[in-house]
Order: sequence, then C-alpha cells, then structure tokens
Amino acid sequence: MVLRALRSAGELGESPSVAELAAVTGLSRPTVEQVVESLLGAGYAAVAGGAARAPRVGRPARRFRFRAEAGHLLGVEIGALRVTVLVADLAGRRVGSAVRTVAADAPAEERLALVAGAARTALMASGVPPDGVRAVGVGSPGIMAADGSVRLCAALPGWTGLPLGERLGSALGAPVLVENDANAAAVGERWRGAAAGCDDVVMVLAGLSPGAGSLIGGRVHRGFGGAAGEIGALHLLGRGAAPERLLSPDGDRPLAALDEAAVGRVLERARGGEARAGAAVQRYVERLTHDVTALVLALDPELVVVGGWASGLEGVAGPLARELSRYCLRTPRVAVSELGAEAIATGALRLALDRVEAEMFAVRAPAGG
Amino acid sequence: MVLRALRSAGELGESPSVAELAAVTGLSRPTVEQVVESLLGAGYAAVAGGAARAPRVGRPARRFRFRAEAGHLLGVEIGALRVTVLVADLAGRRVGSAVRTVAADAPAEERLALVAGAARTALMASGVPPDGVRAVGVGSPGIMAADGSVRLCAALPGWTGLPLGERLGSALGAPVLVENDANAAAVGERWRGAAAGCDDVVMVLAGLSPGAGSLIGGRVHRGFGGAAGEIGALHLLGRGAAPERLLSPDGDRPLAALDEAAVGRVLERARGGEARAGAAVQRYVERLTHDVTALVLALDPELVVVGGWASGLEGVAGPLARELSRYCLRTPRVAVSELGAEAIATGALRLALDRVEAEMFAVRAPAGG
Repeated sequence: MVLRALRSAGELGESPSVAELAAVTGLSRPTVEQVVESLLGAGYAAVAGGAARAPRVGRPARRFRFRAEAGHLLGVEIGALRVTVLVADLAGRRVGSAVRTVAADAPAEERLALVAGAARTALMASGVPPDGVRAVGVGSPGIMAADGSVRLCAALPGWTGLPLGERLGSALGAPVLVENDANAAAVGERWRGAAAGCDDVVMVLAGLSPGAGSLIGGRVHRGFGGAAGEIGALHLLGRGAAPERLLSPDGDRPLAALDEAAVGRVLERARGGEARAGAAVQRYVERLTHDVTALVLALDPELVVVGGWASGLEGVAGPLARELSRYCLRTPRVAVSELGAEAIATGALRLALDRVEAEMFAVRAPAGG
Repeated sequence: MVLRALRSAGELGESPSVAELAAVTGLSRPTVEQVVESLLGAGYAAVAGGAARAPRVGRPARRFRFRAEAGHLLGVEIGALRVTVLVADLAGRRVGSAVRTVAADAPAEERLALVAGAARTALMASGVPPDGVRAVGVGSPGIMAADGSVRLCAALPGWTGLPLGERLGSALGAPVLVENDANAAAVGERWRGAAAGCDDVVMVLAGLSPGAGSLIGGRVHRGFGGAAGEIGALHLLGRGAAPERLLSPDGDRPLAALDEAAVGRVLERARGGEARAGAAVQRYVERLTHDVTALVLALDPELVVVGGWASGLEGVAGPLARELSRYCLRTPRVAVSELGAEAIATGALRLALDRVEAEMFAVRAPAGG
C-alpha cells in the first residue's frame, strides 16, 4: 500500500512525508516508517529533495519518492518484417526505443540476434546499464507455450519449437515473458490505447495474416492450448479467397503474402477514388467482417479494436461496425487502434511491468507492520 | 469442511462418528462436535441409525449423516416445443421429473403456467412439499440479464423483456437462477456428461436454431452483454442458407423452422441410405462445421460437445471432428452429448445446487470453531 501510494504520488509530481503516507494508506505512522525504511533498503524508494512544509516543532519531515529508475523493462515486438524494442522505467515511462527491419525469410537465429542487438542499442541510448533490465515482455506471432517456447508459428521461419523465452533470457540477462502478438496488442490498447477502461476486448490484427487476441474480465484469454484467436484459417471455410487475393485490385494477380506496404498502396488508391482498388478494399472488409463477427458471436466483447495496419484503418472500422450490427444480437463498440505500430510492443512492456510489480508489491512489511 | 466430509461419506454410504470426522478434516474433536451440533440445528445433519464399532469404554459413539432430504431443487428447461422439470435432493440425487410438450407459438403466459404446473406435479409425485424447494435453475433460449429477466429471445413468443426469474420465483416460492440454454447444457455435460473433468468446453446445441455455450476455466462465459455463443446469425455471413433449407432433402421446400421431428426423419432417411437425405445431412454438417470452427478458433477449448438433437448426432460428430482438424491450429476433442434431451435441465439443476451449496457451506462454525 505504501509503495502504491508513493508511486501514485510520483505520477502527480508529489513526494509525500511519512505523515502524508499514513493519512493516505490509513496505516499508523510507525508502520509506515518501518515500511519506508524497507523500501529504501530495497531501492524502491529514495529521500526526495523537495522542502517540506515546516512541522510545528522539530526538524522538517523527510519526503520520499518512488525510485522509478531502480530498474528498467523492455517491451519487444518480433514481427515478420520488423522488430520493435521499447525501454521503460519501473513507472512504465518510456525512456527509449529501437526499430529494425528484417527480411520475411530471415532465419530464426538472424531474427533473434537482431532483437538482442536492437535491445542493447536501445538500452545504451537510454543510459540503462545492460544489467539494469528487470524483465522483458515479447509479443510474437504464433501459439506460445507456458514455458516461453513457440508451440506453432507459420509466419516466421524456424520459429516453431524455438525456446524463445530461454534464448532471449540468456541474451538479455533478464526473465522473459512471451505472449502471442495479438494478445499483447490487446493488453497494450487496454493500458494506453483504444481499450482503456474495457475489460472485455477483442483485438483484431488486420492485415494479410489476420490474428486476434482477447481479454475477458481484464485478463488475456489464451484458450486451452494457447491457440485462441488464431483465426487465420476462417477464410478457408467456404469463403474461398485469401486476403492477398481479396485485396488485389488487379484481378488474378494476388499481393505478395505479408506485403503490408502493398496493402497500404491499395488503401491509398482506394482513398484516391480508384474504383478497382475501392472494390478490393470492400471485398477485404467483407472478409474481415466475417472473421470479426465470428469472434464477436463467440465472445460477446464490450469493444472490438482493429489494428495491425499503420494506416487506412479508419476506412475499415466504419463499415465493420455497420456490418456487425446486422449479425450480432448485441453489437460491440468498434474502435481503431490508438497505438498503431507500437501496440504489440506496448502490450509486451505492460506484461513485463506486471511481473515486476508483482515482485515489488511482494516486498514484505517488517514484523509488526 | 465437516459438512463436505459428511456429504462425501454419505455418497459412499457411510455415517462417520465425530472421531472419524475429526480425523478426515484435521480439526479437533471439540471443534467437530460444535460444528456437528450446529449442523444438526440447521437441519443439514442427522444422527444416523447405524451401529458404531464399540469404543473401548463408555457408550457407543454417535454416527452422523448428511440430510440430503433437508431441501430440494428444481432444474428446468424451457424450450420451444418442450418443458422439462427435474427434481433432486441436496445431494443432487434425482428424485423426480416431468416433461410437457408445448406449441411453438404458445404465448408466454401459457408457457409459464405449463412450467409451474409441471414443477408442482413433479414435486407432488416425488413427495416433496411445495415449500421444500430451496432453489430453481432454469435454462431458456435467449440472452438473459443478470436480474433474471430475458433481454432478448427470438425463439419463444413474448419472451423478450419477460421477468422470467421473478415470475417463476413467485409461482414456485423459491429463488430462481436463469441461464441461457446452451450455457446450462455446458454446465450439465461437465457435471454428469461428456465434459466431465473438462474446464474449457464449447457446447453446441445443433438443430434448426443452433446456439452455443462455453465454459472457460470451469465457469460459464456469458460475455459482456450475455450474448456469447449466440451463433444463430453466422450462416447469414455469405453462406446464404438457413439450416431448415440445408437440411431439406426436397430441394426448394425447406423444413418448418423449429421442427426437430422433421430433422429426426431426415437423419433417419440418411441412415437408411437415401441419397438426397444424405446430401442434406452433409450440407448441414458443413454448415455446423463452419459455426463450430468459428467458436473453436475464437476460444480454443479442450472439448467440443455436440448436443441438442435427441438422436443422430453420431453421424454429425465424426465428420465435424475431421473437418475441425483441417482449420484449427490446435484441434479440440469432439464428443456427443451424453445427457441428450436432459442436458439443459441437468445443467439448470447444477446451477441451483451451486447456489444452495454456497448457502450450506456458509453455515458458520460456532465461536472457537
């Protein structure tokens, strides 16, 4: 309680005294004093420089602050074409980042080395020592096992069976939490994006390899085998066409799989009024509606967040919301991702922060506290 | 703990003494004695007649048993064409039942009166006094609100907006728990059917008005607005055909909506080798596969249970399991309902029992216990 109060005060720019912490937490002053001493010892709190209002007698009360710099976290997205690393302090404040592009067919070792290199660069640029990382969250396509290995992943070469958490843990010297990318994006949007305040969320990563993640009661729903939301195969069910074909404005010539830049160009042409591009986008929205409707009918979320493309999603969310209302007994709200290209890495960061907070808040008050 | 031990012993036909209860629960004998006295007072325990092994000195130890007859429960299914009532004691043992047919277009008042009448008949035939009902569980089609009213129901005339829990509560003089029929069926199959031991279950009620319910972590997943699993509209998504058309062996003449008997005849003809009936069943299985795949991709359950038809489901589950493995990254087990026509009422009974158990186990031990 004391640590939470200290951190909350820090977010408001305040450095409370023991008396103020006692008032906020409802604990006795001697108890708060003991807890603060143990937090000072653990490095989570520091004496603040700010002057205190003078007490009626005696020396001025010491003021304290949460030491957000006591450790750092990484949030990592590993994608088919791009790797993103975010660096944050223990208050979740972002202090650095790095983005690297990677070939879709890069072997697993190359991709792993790129992640580790990007992380080291981002840490160095942020002035964080390599041993200052307390936890790493990773969002990756595929089905993740509880031990941090990749159970199945069609999108990244050599990824299936990779002990991803273990390998990155060795490279970065910190515990690694591995999560499916769409699940991580859902967590990210709930933390700092379009799903703020929502506990029941379906997050759809549109694009050429669509995936979905969901939160139920504020927690990631992974399913019995970690495969919940793997909707990539839905279009095989009698709908016939894959996204790269639906989105092709040129009839029989499909877009290259995973070529999101090509998708961006089609969306651009559709916005410019080109009829064939418009028809292609329309076909894709129908397909996306089909996938999302299936998820919504199964889960009945409060909110659907559409993300996964850097731009053009406004043109998708509107028609999607209209279509959903035709099929759903209760129609959820539809919103476009607010975190865009950083949704997955932001969610991964939040998962790392969750872990470290669980440790921090487990610091025990001394006997009698 | 004492009450649980007493009830478990009762299931084995045993009547334990205070010493035996103390040994099983790890509580002290004086504590167990106090608890047993309070259970005797509350009517949940009785002194058993069975002779005890003679203790070394003094009078024989008294033996005790759980009074399963201290109260009774009702499990009710309200369907389009049929109403089912099950009566059970506090141990969940079935002591009676009643089934009534009803016209699909019967007004709500008529359907409610039929339920109340069936319940009274079943209670009387079981020798349970009308005031002996401790809780009633009800499974009904539609979206149920938390207050026991029907938020939306297309299947039963006049059902939308009906304060179902309140109305049946007044008629039966007991608290009523209202649940969507497919959700109730999932609970029933987990308690005493095909889903025993499974916490992550999708239950599909096949038929002309398909619906689904799901358990996640052993608990019913209702969704943000209670509409989870309402997959009836999935077939509108570009698949074109409604079940009554798909299942028609006679080309353009669809079956009557809700006419499950007609479905039974089609299945029968298909089993008899009639080609057109076989093709109709095949079309329906494809449609069902589509619906179930959507649910499975969204939720990733351990097990899919197919129910809702009284017979013929063996012919559906096999092809469904084969088809699922084509689309799912992780394929769940597929099983046919073991409870058949009683799945919904059995689940409703379990929900009533859950409620009464929560009350029973809240009986407080006396001070010092």
